[in-house]
Amino acid sequence: MMRTRPLKVALLGCGVVGSEVARIMTTHADDLAARIGAPVELAGVAVRRTGKAREGIDPALVTTDATALVKRGDIDVVVEVIGGIEPARTLITTAFEHGASVVSANKALLAQDGAALHAAAEAHGKDLYYEAAVAGAIPLIRPLRESLAGDKVNRVLGIVNGTTNFILDKMDSTGAGYQEALDEATALGYAEADPTADVEGFDAAAKAAILAGIAFHTRVRLDDVYREGMTEVTAADFRSAKEMGCTIKLLAICERSKDGTSVTARVHPAMIPLSHPLASVRGAYNAVFVESDAAGQLMFYGPGAGGSPTASAVLGDLVAVCRNRLSGATGPGESAYADLTVSPMGDVVTRYHISLDVADKPGVLAQVATVFAEHGVSIDTVRQQGKDGEASLVVVTHRASDAALSGTVEALRKLDTVRGVASIMRVEGE
Amino acid sequence: MMRTRPLKVALLGCGVVGSEVARIMTTHADDLAARIGAPVELAGVAVRRTGKAREGIDPALVTTDATALVKRGDIDVVVEVIGGIEPARTLITTAFEHGASVVSANKALLAQDGAALHAAAEAHGKDLYYEAAVAGAIPLIRPLRESLAGDKVNRVLGIVNGTTNFILDKMDSTGAGYQEALDEATALGYAEADPTADVEGFDAAAKAAILAGIAFHTRVRLDDVYREGMTEVTAADFRSAKEMGCTIKLLAICERSKDGTSVTARVHPAMIPLSHPLASVRGAYNAVFVESDAAGQLMFYGPGAGGSPTASAVLGDLVAVCRNRLSGATGPGESAYADLTVSPMGDVVTRYHISLDVADKPGVLAQVATVFAEHGVSIDTVRQQGKDGEASLVVVTHRASDAALSGTVEALRKLDTVRGVASIMRVEGE
Repeated sequence: MMRTRPLKVALLGCGVVGSEVARIMTTHADDLAARIGAPVELAGVAVRRTGKAREGIDPALVTTDATALVKRGDIDVVVEVIGGIEPARTLITTAFEHGASVVSANKALLAQDGAALHAAAEAHGKDLYYEAAVAGAIPLIRPLRESLAGDKVNRVLGIVNGTTNFILDKMDSTGAGYQEALDEATALGYAEADPTADVEGFDAAAKAAILAGIAFHTRVRLDDVYREGMTEVTAADFRSAKEMGCTIKLLAICERSKDGTSVTARVHPAMIPLSHPLASVRGAYNAVFVESDAAGQLMFYGPGAGGSPTASAVLGDLVAVCRNRLSGATGPGESAYADLTVSPMGDVVTRYHISLDVADKPGVLAQVATVFAEHGVSIDTVRQQGKDGEASLVVVTHRASDAALSGTVEALRKLDTVRGVASIMRVEGE
Repeated sequence: MMRTRPLKVALLGCGVVGSEVARIMTTHADDLAARIGAPVELAGVAVRRTGKAREGIDPALVTTDATALVKRGDIDVVVEVIGGIEPARTLITTAFEHGASVVSANKALLAQDGAALHAAAEAHGKDLYYEAAVAGAIPLIRPLRESLAGDKVNRVLGIVNGTTNFILDKMDSTGAGYQEALDEATALGYAEADPTADVEGFDAAAKAAILAGIAFHTRVRLDDVYREGMTEVTAADFRSAKEMGCTIKLLAICERSKDGTSVTARVHPAMIPLSHPLASVRGAYNAVFVESDAAGQLMFYGPGAGGSPTASAVLGDLVAVCRNRLSGATGPGESAYADLTVSPMGDVVTRYHISLDVADKPGVLAQVATVFAEHGVSIDTVRQQGKDGEASLVVVTHRASDAALSGTVEALRKLDTVRGVASIMRVEGE
């Protein structure tokens, strides 16, 4: 029952991911045709500069005019792997207007303009798929949107940035400081020359916005995501984590409130117990832990980036979108019907590990404990260490709101006996 | 754009899973309607015996005549959670004939008659979905059939039976023997009164057949799956595993051969390194590790059984099938186009850990090593331990075919100096 007219694919971008998509489309053409029910044909490749030899790609297909390519009218699917906001956004909406469905790997664009893009897709009766935008090859968007469509997701807890996980894993296993571990990541190609997007949590925040939107059927904008990078995590923090039976990971956390009416999304470094499945995610791997009412605890693990893994996710979407074209259907679009309130960081409730440098004299603990009590933050454990007139106080709290904790810390800083707040780290996954 | 005529669902079976499906359909009715685009209505529940009060289910819906229910003609989706071969098989084919699509959790039936059921679904233009048949709530069928549809899967390595994982984890962590760990599993409700299907690997073999078929786009019958239970795993085996830096798991392993033209599927206990992500899967949890060309290594982890987790998977399928009904499309059917040869166990290539009881005298090692060499099985390491005229020899081989290893063991048993083969264990996941 194979249809012989091929489905035509336009590829926007031919870098690390795009060239791998093109390669697999060629080498696995027979498999793709069998799985789709029709052959797929690379009909055009838009690049920034022509003239460069691109192995396995017919030079006649290559163009610098991406707009003309998506306007051709005979394109079935546009694969967008350019990244960034413009021109990707305009090209995608133009593609919908000219009858194509779209597969994208563009997390920044989806996080910022997902709602508008979904609306454009729906207005034209086309598909918008983007499995590759979050956690590379790991099937995550499809399981959340489809496999768990009959369940109620309460929390998504993920390591969604490989660069920072590589750095933190290195600090954990070798005792290295942040800069030393970053230098190694850069030397090995795990971190870019300008690592800001990774280490400051921008990349993870975009993914958190996408995941929260899908998990809670609620529109979550990038601005709704609290973001804290991991550049200030120290070797001392790792020693503290070890004493707690924990390690430190940069986590993207999307949570439904206890009463179910609101959600929060945030990215920050956090301690998690060594017994938690996320604790043993090593190197540049990603993993996402999902907690739902009926399914319970699920985890999805794999490579979060790289040309081949990302291409795998793109091609899975391409097969699905092509099947939909053949059957005349579209896959699930944006689902934002629940329209829950997105609460600010102050409403987040979790536990905290706080290290204070204090004067080594009687009464300090009592003063500090009073401040916690006044702000309604209950203390779980306190450990005092003192020598030579200097002392440190490590406080681990029970669950409290981020607003209450912030108020506590502000008040602690005003105490004469508190010389400094050495670190504040949230404790998750318990 | 909500359609108001509800989609009608017939539920076959109302045990642990069925009652949970009915409960969630009621309590989450609004969510399901929003996600599907139309309300779903429980139109009938077939049970073996009526008269029992079923919380939340209108007694007027309950019937013992499952056949009449699937023949009604107004049913959109039949959810089959009876289990076993008959009457489930006939009811499912009857459902297709009368216009319904089917969601099933029936691993035994799918493993035995998947091809015929898929053919029946296709002949009538209906859907057959069965995410719940393998590894409970863990999204696995959908990721393999859809997310990885543009990739080439080379190996699936899974812990797909919670009962046996509970027992093996207990033996590993406490040093208990098999019987003691089984007794505890039974007392805690993790093992059934007759644990044969679990401990002899029948349950895992059915899942391996289903996974291999989907992963390799090839029909793999239950008879094609090599099966070895875990009742003979001893505390001594765990001590040997620890010396190797390994633990022991009952694994379902589906592999493509190096040259890509054939596949194998097998279930047996095996040593895996503690550093492998599957090694830390504790208690009754399941996890499946997938290796593919482009995506690399992926792992899917979660609860593999239980009423709620299985219901989560059933309901995810129900939402997908209902969406397909509304759009007039069907999801991906059976994909067996690759039609690869399914090779017997003798062709499997792996490493082996063999413990021999031998006479404690000079020349024994030379004799044993000669037997390995004659059968073309290369030795990686040998460890000798001797006392009081008795000695043991632990041999770990390089990769060799199962046929070559079997021949080696047969010849070893004939040596006068070999008093017994204490254990043979495959070593996987390296």
